[in-house]
Amino acid sequence: MKKISILGSTGSIGTQTLEIVRENKEKLKVYALSGNSNINLLEKQINEFKPAICAVMYKENAEKLRSRISGDTKIVYGMDGLVQSVCANGIDIVVTAISGMIGLKPTIEAIRCGKDIALANKETLVAGGEIVMSLAKKHNVKILPVDSEHSAIFQCLMGNEENRISKILLTASGGPFRGKSLKELETVTLADTLNHPNWSMGKKITVDSATLMNKGLEAIEAKWLFDLTPEQIQVVVHPQSIIHSAVEYDDHSIIAQMGNPDMKIPIQFALFYPYRLENNLKSLDLFEIGSLTFEKPDMDTFKCLKLAFDAMKTGNSMPIVLNKANELTVEMLLNKEINFLDIQNIIEDVMLKHNPVKVESFDEILEVAKWTVANIKNK
Amino acid sequence: MKKISILGSTGSIGTQTLEIVRENKEKLKVYALSGNSNINLLEKQINEFKPAICAVMYKENAEKLRSRISGDTKIVYGMDGLVQSVCANGIDIVVTAISGMIGLKPTIEAIRCGKDIALANKETLVAGGEIVMSLAKKHNVKILPVDSEHSAIFQCLMGNEENRISKILLTASGGPFRGKSLKELETVTLADTLNHPNWSMGKKITVDSATLMNKGLEAIEAKWLFDLTPEQIQVVVHPQSIIHSAVEYDDHSIIAQMGNPDMKIPIQFALFYPYRLENNLKSLDLFEIGSLTFEKPDMDTFKCLKLAFDAMKTGNSMPIVLNKANELTVEMLLNKEINFLDIQNIIEDVMLKHNPVKVESFDEILEVAKWTVANIKNK
Repeated sequence: MKKISILGSTGSIGTQTLEIVRENKEKLKVYALSGNSNINLLEKQINEFKPAICAVMYKENAEKLRSRISGDTKIVYGMDGLVQSVCANGIDIVVTAISGMIGLKPTIEAIRCGKDIALANKETLVAGGEIVMSLAKKHNVKILPVDSEHSAIFQCLMGNEENRISKILLTASGGPFRGKSLKELETVTLADTLNHPNWSMGKKITVDSATLMNKGLEAIEAKWLFDLTPEQIQVVVHPQSIIHSAVEYDDHSIIAQMGNPDMKIPIQFALFYPYRLENNLKSLDLFEIGSLTFEKPDMDTFKCLKLAFDAMKTGNSMPIVLNKANELTVEMLLNKEINFLDIQNIIEDVMLKHNPVKVESFDEILEVAKWTVANIKNK
Repeated sequence: MKKISILGSTGSIGTQTLEIVRENKEKLKVYALSGNSNINLLEKQINEFKPAICAVMYKENAEKLRSRISGDTKIVYGMDGLVQSVCANGIDIVVTAISGMIGLKPTIEAIRCGKDIALANKETLVAGGEIVMSLAKKHNVKILPVDSEHSAIFQCLMGNEENRISKILLTASGGPFRGKSLKELETVTLADTLNHPNWSMGKKITVDSATLMNKGLEAIEAKWLFDLTPEQIQVVVHPQSIIHSAVEYDDHSIIAQMGNPDMKIPIQFALFYPYRLENNLKSLDLFEIGSLTFEKPDMDTFKCLKLAFDAMKTGNSMPIVLNKANELTVEMLLNKEINFLDIQNIIEDVMLKHNPVKVESFDEILEVAKWTVANIKNK
């Protein structure tokens, strides 16, 4: 019986993880849950899964939740609460399904406590890649990727421990605006932006998919997970999202992972690695799909992708600026304070202003994030 | 330094294997060569690679060759010669690149002598699958597939020793006649038949690709190599020959192997497994290819594929009849004695006449093969 903690159990990855628990009750037990403001769903989840701990961000939500539930679940709050919910004895693996840089601190603490990580929070590695990877090594902790692309690469690397990666092919659907010109992007609406063609996901990542920033963040995540140079990462637009990514080796043999676009496969794989479990998903039907297509990404129009590669090449504090500026502008877009193209322009501006510095601790990461916020707010 | 013996060094796989040796002289040494009638090429190969042994089929060719060469290479002939050329002390791995059932006996002897097998002769497993696989197990010998599809599957299985294969996707280019009707096939010429769209190969396998018998033989080969039921083998027509085959696991995750269609990748992989070596081949350019397409095979028109699955399901001696009838009819086609569609009709007829029997030895396989020849000749 594997005991899991889900950081962000009310989000898209969180709820899908709980579906997998539901289908594998004899193999998985929920030890801890955590969420932000969706108290109603947390209440339901507590009643169904009876975790030992549940963490929320704010005290008032914790109190509301306490008054509503009847079982033994301990309700905690704040960053301390989140850390408790990942570090408690008895937890085997933490699913970091929370979105944004807020996931960094509890992930670091979970690693310090020796918990394996099923990593679905890419901002963790974008902002803290060096710190997180070296801590994981030190504490002999597995980082099992949950993002479909990174899970694909991870699967394509299995059995090839002796072999050097020549490059990875990081596939991208291209999002809802694939093929559009800058001119056309000037008038897209928030509703258009949130209408992803293939994947059903949270709002932040759906916007990131439309700007292609998501692929940029994934490239940086891949750099850290698989120890790659920027030149070893090739983004391939593949609108059908059937090939989830691939690895080319030195002999020019490419191993690819494919399937219907469903996050349950990578989540399940991370939870049960190295075992693959039967599930109730549909088999991929290549006859029905008929054709898989591939295009070069348009980095001039979708500048976020180029900015992410720039940040990766610059290194040091630049990816933190990229990431924080992106989090903030996506929030502004969701609040209808800015337009779609403002995202990439604002991020570019703040990156141009930034003087990269070496970053060696969580507090230093926070400093850079604060600098970024200040320099966007003061615009 | 790995010492190799090449059974069939003058053919397509044989000469490509020698190219790999040429590029990796510090890692590979040719210990033995063998060929049939192409004495001129054998002479050149002996002069260049200076093997300890070279085997040919007929005494007169052996004598010719002896008179022409100057070095220390021992020239042997006949089936005894072939067996010497694979069993000599010092040989680490035998590349069985000879075409047809003639490869079965020396392959069996090589296994008995404890040599690893780089298997490029699919007829070996089609006719003698049970015997060969149980012998390989007994002698703790590796069977490393060289066929691009089986190499692909083998690569897709790496690191998944814990996991059950749900099914394999065995890809097929569809050959030069893909999409044609029975009516249209009535008038195709030998030149059309030998004009394969993607792969440059020997004549026998090129004809087999046009009839789709090649895919049928590969399905039977896969059954033995990977311990599959016929229901676990799905043939997928994929005209671009970029995905060389794939494995679907129980979790509906599919691992595929891709690359430009070049036999040097699988040959090299079999020779250096589990290591992948750099080579001078071109990287796959998905942008240039643009799209990969998939279709169901037309088993009503290309009846050979259906006959092969029938033979696999029937088992016992039936695959031997299928294979021998195919070898014979392909020869007849190459000699312009029959037309393209006669191949599948003659094979079907002789299979209908055959009463399957259990086959437990090499001699019993020969008996069935003889029965097949007689029942075609007496037609």
